[in-house]
Amino acid sequence: MTETTGYSGSGLVLVKNPHLDLMEEDILYHLDLGTKTHNLPAMFGDIKFVCVGGSPRRMRAFAQFMRRELGLAGPGEDVADICGGSDRYAMYRAGPVLSISHGMGIPSISIMLHELIKLLHHAKCRDVTIIRIGTSGGLGIEAGSVVITDTAVDSSFQPRFEQVVLGDVVVRSTELDKGLAEELLACSRDIPDFPTLIGHTMCTYDFYEGQGRLDGALCSFSSEKKLEYLRRAYDAGVRNIEMESTAFAALCGLCGLKAAVVCVALLDRLEGDQIRASHEVLWEYQQRPQRLIAAFIRKRLGLFATD
Amino acid sequence: MTETTGYSGSGLVLVKNPHLDLMEEDILYHLDLGTKTHNLPAMFGDIKFVCVGGSPRRMRAFAQFMRRELGLAGPGEDVADICGGSDRYAMYRAGPVLSISHGMGIPSISIMLHELIKLLHHAKCRDVTIIRIGTSGGLGIEAGSVVITDTAVDSSFQPRFEQVVLGDVVVRSTELDKGLAEELLACSRDIPDFPTLIGHTMCTYDFYEGQGRLDGALCSFSSEKKLEYLRRAYDAGVRNIEMESTAFAALCGLCGLKAAVVCVALLDRLEGDQIRASHEVLWEYQQRPQRLIAAFIRKRLGLFATD
Repeated sequence: MTETTGYSGSGLVLVKNPHLDLMEEDILYHLDLGTKTHNLPAMFGDIKFVCVGGSPRRMRAFAQFMRRELGLAGPGEDVADICGGSDRYAMYRAGPVLSISHGMGIPSISIMLHELIKLLHHAKCRDVTIIRIGTSGGLGIEAGSVVITDTAVDSSFQPRFEQVVLGDVVVRSTELDKGLAEELLACSRDIPDFPTLIGHTMCTYDFYEGQGRLDGALCSFSSEKKLEYLRRAYDAGVRNIEMESTAFAALCGLCGLKAAVVCVALLDRLEGDQIRASHEVLWEYQQRPQRLIAAFIRKRLGLFATD
Repeated sequence: MTETTGYSGSGLVLVKNPHLDLMEEDILYHLDLGTKTHNLPAMFGDIKFVCVGGSPRRMRAFAQFMRRELGLAGPGEDVADICGGSDRYAMYRAGPVLSISHGMGIPSISIMLHELIKLLHHAKCRDVTIIRIGTSGGLGIEAGSVVITDTAVDSSFQPRFEQVVLGDVVVRSTELDKGLAEELLACSRDIPDFPTLIGHTMCTYDFYEGQGRLDGALCSFSSEKKLEYLRRAYDAGVRNIEMESTAFAALCGLCGLKAAVVCVALLDRLEGDQIRASHEVLWEYQQRPQRLIAAFIRKRLGLFATD
């Protein structure tokens, strides 16, 4: 079974589900939003950028940062969690930018994306760009480097996402928007204080055994076997490893959203497994994708660069 | 490749990783704990019960509830998040009971379990019982019913968990402790105001297409095909569907932890897909597994039943 990537000439988000139109009400359960309880077009109709990341605190900090970058922040003002009625995800607004947490792993981001894509559809949003700003393990690159994903690959280094539908496996493309990746790389040239590169991103279902770590509760392989696997990944073009990109690329691609993945590497996995940097250093690393995306959004909106 | 389920006569938790002993320090990154920064035996050595569930708010409420049930709660006292330095998981204590959130999906619970199992190992805990208290979709059972899992099965109704290790698939058993399940069922007989049953639990990687929902952003199948799939699951013995049980059973089994899964059904999936009950009703449903587990822990500790 093959599926085509969707792009609608109207710029609208494409839900590919004939049943949705027949529903009187759509409850976006994990976001604590719904079509009868909320006026979604009024709340979200003008959204042009959606940024998603694993950690709720980081996505809150990103919304606050974007409000300052866009000149929207009043003194002492705070941002409110739009999904405050649910503790599954957190969602914040900064002008035309939505900032949402997705937790860790493919199942968690996939629930959020289904409900987010329906939200953008119900709200009649147009020309939305979606970017995952995350953390990752680097491969043969310096800690703190930012990787813009050209292709998301699975643990066999293949550009595919396997989705189970009614017990059967459907294989989906994990293509991301090439133009958007190039545009982001161009933006990074104005931020010289950290390295940014384009490369493949490997997406796994597990942080420990799935990524060849020697420091989990279970480990059945040697250090040599681990390095052999990671070097094969490097030779296949993988520059970082995380846990959401294939599902993100597949779902966004099918629904006509222009999508990018921009992750900072917290360590170089060829050098070790444990994340040993101090909280301060890690926090600064995590701001790097945010600074890049802020520069990109300001440029898109025609605002002067302040970075 | 086959692996044997571990049970240690000493009652200690078994980590199966020869590399761990060679590490000078073990940073449990996502829990914000470590062997050099924290005295884990002093903090956790007396833990006998670990309860895990998806939602941080629910696991906080469970810790508060358990403190009252065990006579440990001072008036107006609050519980502190032991993992407060990380927003990936939340962890609370109530006497010998640890209550931890694991987010949604196999990858998210798997990261937490690796670090939790190492924590219990470093802390030299003995005879620990671990129970997942979660929410689920029911199959042919009344909303609000509590299902004690005898066997966790995958989307093909097989009792197995496929773990990718260095790019290769390792198949693991998803057996749970039968004696513990029977003990929990016996406890449920003292709580007559909601139905409790034993059945198979199906574990999927996705909430929408993976569980045959018609209300996701994508849906390529008919209502008839959906019901045919769910009826096949029912005929195979599945009574509820969630997103963590196979990985939970596999990891706990390999590490010698006696484990159980106790989930409430928020709806009957043969009747619909959307979770439509009010917040109040859903909150009361979510307390049912907590009440059952509180009765079980009190009984184990030789405390009088108050429920």
